Amino acid sequence: MANDSGPPKSRDGFQWTEEKGLQAGLPTLGLINPASNLTKGKTYDAIVVGAGYAGLTASRNLVLAGYDVLLLEARDRIGGRSWSSNIEGYPYELGGTWVHWHQPFIWAELRRYAMTDELEVSPRKNVEGGAKVTVQLDGKMIHISHDEEDAIIESAFKKFINVDGQLGRSVIPYPHNVEYNMKGLKEYDQMSMADRMKQVSSHLTPLEKNMFEGFLAITHGAKWEEASFFELLRWWALMNYNYPDFMAIGLTFKLRRGQSALARRIFDEANDTGRLNYSFSTPISTITENGGIVEVSRPTECEVFRARRLVCTVPLNVLHALSFAPPLPVLKTVASLNNHVNQVVKCHAEVANPEMRSLGATNYPDGKLTYTFGDGTTPAGNTHLVAFGSSLPGVHLDPEQDIEITKQAFKAFHPDMRVKRIVFHNWHRDEFARGAWEWLRPGMTTKYLPALRERHGNVFFASSDFSNGWRGFIDGAIEDGSKVAREIDDELKPVQLSKSARITSKL
Amino acid sequence: MANDSGPPKSRDGFQWTEEKGLQAGLPTLGLINPASNLTKGKTYDAIVVGAGYAGLTASRNLVLAGYDVLLLEARDRIGGRSWSSNIEGYPYELGGTWVHWHQPFIWAELRRYAMTDELEVSPRKNVEGGAKVTVQLDGKMIHISHDEEDAIIESAFKKFINVDGQLGRSVIPYPHNVEYNMKGLKEYDQMSMADRMKQVSSHLTPLEKNMFEGFLAITHGAKWEEASFFELLRWWALMNYNYPDFMAIGLTFKLRRGQSALARRIFDEANDTGRLNYSFSTPISTITENGGIVEVSRPTECEVFRARRLVCTVPLNVLHALSFAPPLPVLKTVASLNNHVNQVVKCHAEVANPEMRSLGATNYPDGKLTYTFGDGTTPAGNTHLVAFGSSLPGVHLDPEQDIEITKQAFKAFHPDMRVKRIVFHNWHRDEFARGAWEWLRPGMTTKYLPALRERHGNVFFASSDFSNGWRGFIDGAIEDGSKVAREIDDELKPVQLSKSARITSKL
Repeated sequence: MANDSGPPKSRDGFQWTEEKGLQAGLPTLGLINPASNLTKGKTYDAIVVGAGYAGLTASRNLVLAGYDVLLLEARDRIGGRSWSSNIEGYPYELGGTWVHWHQPFIWAELRRYAMTDELEVSPRKNVEGGAKVTVQLDGKMIHISHDEEDAIIESAFKKFINVDGQLGRSVIPYPHNVEYNMKGLKEYDQMSMADRMKQVSSHLTPLEKNMFEGFLAITHGAKWEEASFFELLRWWALMNYNYPDFMAIGLTFKLRRGQSALARRIFDEANDTGRLNYSFSTPISTITENGGIVEVSRPTECEVFRARRLVCTVPLNVLHALSFAPPLPVLKTVASLNNHVNQVVKCHAEVANPEMRSLGATNYPDGKLTYTFGDGTTPAGNTHLVAFGSSLPGVHLDPEQDIEITKQAFKAFHPDMRVKRIVFHNWHRDEFARGAWEWLRPGMTTKYLPALRERHGNVFFASSDFSNGWRGFIDGAIEDGSKVAREIDDELKPVQLSKSARITSKL
Repeated sequence: MANDSGPPKSRDGFQWTEEKGLQAGLPTLGLINPASNLTKGKTYDAIVVGAGYAGLTASRNLVLAGYDVLLLEARDRIGGRSWSSNIEGYPYELGGTWVHWHQPFIWAELRRYAMTDELEVSPRKNVEGGAKVTVQLDGKMIHISHDEEDAIIESAFKKFINVDGQLGRSVIPYPHNVEYNMKGLKEYDQMSMADRMKQVSSHLTPLEKNMFEGFLAITHGAKWEEASFFELLRWWALMNYNYPDFMAIGLTFKLRRGQSALARRIFDEANDTGRLNYSFSTPISTITENGGIVEVSRPTECEVFRARRLVCTVPLNVLHALSFAPPLPVLKTVASLNNHVNQVVKCHAEVANPEMRSLGATNYPDGKLTYTFGDGTTPAGNTHLVAFGSSLPGVHLDPEQDIEITKQAFKAFHPDMRVKRIVFHNWHRDEFARGAWEWLRPGMTTKYLPALRERHGNVFFASSDFSNGWRGFIDGAIEDGSKVAREIDDELKPVQLSKSARITSKL
């Protein structure tokens, strides 16, 4: 099962096969080669730090508006926490995956690149003769149908969400505008997922509690005491206040060619303007503003990059590792030091069990992986399973530390499973992410969110970690990236305008 | 009730008050003054014909990308079939009104202009002590609650839609990608609304049939035999395959300052670039392409306008009135001559009945207006009602022809009604629209839609009448406008690029 003909390898991610054992690095369309293309010594209109969706969107929009942009990325690839690896012609999504037409900003991107008809349905339930749902309860494995699974989780979810007799609608009537109801926000943001579970657990059947907790654990990927309940209310509102839409929007449609194919389109469009400069494998250490010019420096290098504006898309959990001068406002720094709590594990397996295309399984709370389902069929006819593990104390899995434990964690979902390949990116140990998608601690939204969104002199911030709208999702990253691009354009435009006016008169 | 301090008056629309009687013209933020600002004799990069949302979006995106654009509009205002009149500080929506965060392209516009927190809830049900729902059945008026109304219409709607046992999901699994299932499209596109009603009417109670028909009549605004059933399946799929979302997405949230406030933001952003030329009150008669250059001429004027590309956003029902050289492909012309069938009447009243804020009423099939509900409260404390009338033979209403009949049509909804003001735009008699939002005849989607979307030489077409996605909605217009702007940019870019390269080297 060699893979020498696919796209080039990124340093990121890991793959295990029986033949080759564990190998670091995964092939991806998102690798950028050559790794750098820039004009030295130039003062750019804008520097964008980070080539995830926020940074890619900001860069593309700024170069399209006529600005000279330098995009700096610590990794050797685009996509940040959303990227796919093409292995034997099949895309594995290492991070952000699912999209939906109710997510306005990513949907507009898919339209832009004529990719809206490239949606693939991830879970395939009720396949005839296929695997059903397995649940570990009190040390025994039980088998139920997908319809039963849905009914159980929906029943539990409604009890958990229904704080107002209106399934949360009165708390968040406008899911994209959290500021609309600060009263509800304050109350439920202080509440942890553990607090909420205490309130409703006497209303849940043992099976409901087990399966729903197994399901929810992978939304926040943290200890229950450390995850804000408000974030779940917000997800629920964004997903149209009901469970079928929660699944349809959050966990159903993915891109046939993988996220890196979309990210690549954005990068390529930007690059084609001739105004994009970039440098990959370029981690930065300091961001300094002097007389309106922002300077960026790298660890152990003398060279600095200069621009009139800077877009910082560094994830919340990493922001505090950068040195700013003038220093960041205390609220930003403290928010980053507090960090968001999502350390969920995501791990793929290719299993020689075609019937497991319709498998769904939970193994909570003791499984190293707690939730899995069939995510596709590989070209070899095997089933691709995607699995998640929560970060409860004592069970957190770092797959590259012991691949046998990881294989066993898959097999624990179903005794018949024959694992051929394992693919993953350990976000927990990734120094440029330090976690998965955003899930704030109790009280953090109220206390830090407005500050996190504020500019700092000529430095603007954009990230799915503190965006409006679909915060924690690819959509939020794109929304925030376009927002700061517009803000910067608004400030720099007068100069551009007179420039273009001069040009027009010359031609 | 004079209105001398508001925005300037457009020629469009009508207002009736007891004091002043019927007056043509309505004040609007969408009036553009001065009406023209252009460089004579210049060959533009692009001419955009029509300043509705499609044309505004295309113009703005093209000027932002650096092109010189001439926007030509027959009316004296922007917005096309979506515009609002501010009367005594209160916005009446004369055309397209309701928006939702599940409509990706208008939502992105609202984000762009920081207007997402300017949503207003239109129908206010279950207001304590407020009016309920009135229905005319067999010559008698009956009163029911809003919850009863919802239950009745939802029950009927599901029976009407459920062609596949899955509430239409198997026919249109991807609501934004109609091409996904041409088999279902063909079958249900041939079917008229009348055909479908025949299939299900024996399953409807008399009250269900009356109220549901009254409701549906205003979606298509035509004779039932002339309206394609597929269009309703498409709306239903776009609105998330259920009735509560149908109402939430289609008929609930409107803009606090009115659609013209949003349209104005788009126009102003384009205008601020200094690259937008425009001429209002400029109907055109011919579009001629010669050696790659497109020329536009006006009736009875010698002057022509020239550009390298043209975006035609003229509504489907008007397209055939333009003369093209080379002539349009037959399918485009025939589609336009066949026209879409929606001739729905939309009419507002200010009534001195505060309790009617929560009124809902149908008066079908005999009412000149068949459906109304409370849409707001005016600064004077009166209720603003929005009403619709269908175009059934013998009942079609042209309000300006007999305002007394129009007043009576309102009063027929509820005997206590005291009508103080009537505001409307008669789209049926509007030579630049010849109808309301798009609703195709049976078979037209299958036969004409792909041809309608095709370019014709250097002439591109964009309209909510034949857009992807939210076709028939503001969102579709914006989507289509951005799409053609990108296509034109892709073609003209190489020249732009070398231009900008030259510039960069000079500076």
